[in-house]
Amino acid sequence: MNLKRLHVRARYSEAAICNGMVYLAGMVPECEATDIRSQTTDVLAQVDRCLAEAGSDRTLILRAQIYLADIKDIAAMNEVWDAWVSAGSAPPRATVQAALSNPDWRIEIVVTAVQALRT
Amino acid sequence: MNLKRLHVRARYSEAAICNGMVYLAGMVPECEATDIRSQTTDVLAQVDRCLAEAGSDRTLILRAQIYLADIKDIAAMNEVWDAWVSAGSAPPRATVQAALSNPDWRIEIVVTAVQALRT
Amino acid sequence: MNLKRLHVRARYSEAAICNGMVYLAGMVPECEATDIRSQTTDVLAQVDRCLAEAGSDRTLILRAQIYLADIKDIAAMNEVWDAWVSAGSAPPRATVQAALSNPDWRIEIVVTAVQALRT
Repeated sequence: MNLKRLHVRARYSEAAICNGMVYLAGMVPECEATDIRSQTTDVLAQVDRCLAEAGSDRTLILRAQIYLADIKDIAAMNEVWDAWVSAGSAPPRATVQAALSNPDWRIEIVVTAVQALRT
Repeated sequence: MNLKRLHVRARYSEAAICNGMVYLAGMVPECEATDIRSQTTDVLAQVDRCLAEAGSDRTLILRAQIYLADIKDIAAMNEVWDAWVSAGSAPPRATVQAALSNPDWRIEIVVTAVQALRT
Repeated sequence: MNLKRLHVRARYSEAAICNGMVYLAGMVPECEATDIRSQTTDVLAQVDRCLAEAGSDRTLILRAQIYLADIKDIAAMNEVWDAWVSAGSAPPRATVQAALSNPDWRIEIVVTAVQALRT
């Protein structure tokens, strides 16, 4: 068993890496923008950054759980998602509506991936 | 690292198989029926079909996350679930309410499983 | 492939242990208390108990998915969580609002962990 955490804080860490698997925390918007397209772009950029730091990338995602504060945002979210996803590597996905912990957030994404090379 | 995806579309794939593990997408009703019993039966049949294609089956589920559009459907959903589950192999489960991306859908199930024989 | 389940009932099991990984069911309050602090304490005690039985512990959690019936409970939940989490081992976490199957429950937690020693 080989467990490493990234950006460990008092309450949570951003990622856990264990036996070649990468478990990210729920990624939420850090940008000022309040629209779903900007927030989705921001969250997916964070996913890219965290996966890179964990030795993985968007082609290696095993599941994405997407929470939308308003499910009616799904079409606009999908526009950004579809442009982001790597052709031939779209991951299994589940998208449901859920109120998030900050009322300004419209999206939260929870990603599970595999490392490119097991570290 | 050995990653294979099933039914890869532009937006998502139906399953990711990696190092003996199977991650399914959120399965949603494909039937015309709008009642919870029929939709649960339909979704569980899809789970069976996807798991079979991935070299797994309902006795090898490691977790089922169930989303109900209306949590009051849980008793009727459980009737169908209880008849479907393999005796002695009931998986860890979590059931919560969440609005789904199509207002006609009453249920979505996200399954994680292990392969019978690692491929 | 080496799969073991803990406390298998007709409908679900409390944990699945497979290839060194531990998948718990959604843990819900078993106490009489109806306030979020007491219920969080109760649920986290159940997580500890289940993880111990599975050969793991709170320092080995890879992800915690937290559902709150009322997202406004998050501050009070975090007070209990912060005191419970092992310093340096806080896991990736996602917290969203979702109605739960019993209206008296204010919290449900779904934990994925790794075993200390693979059994």
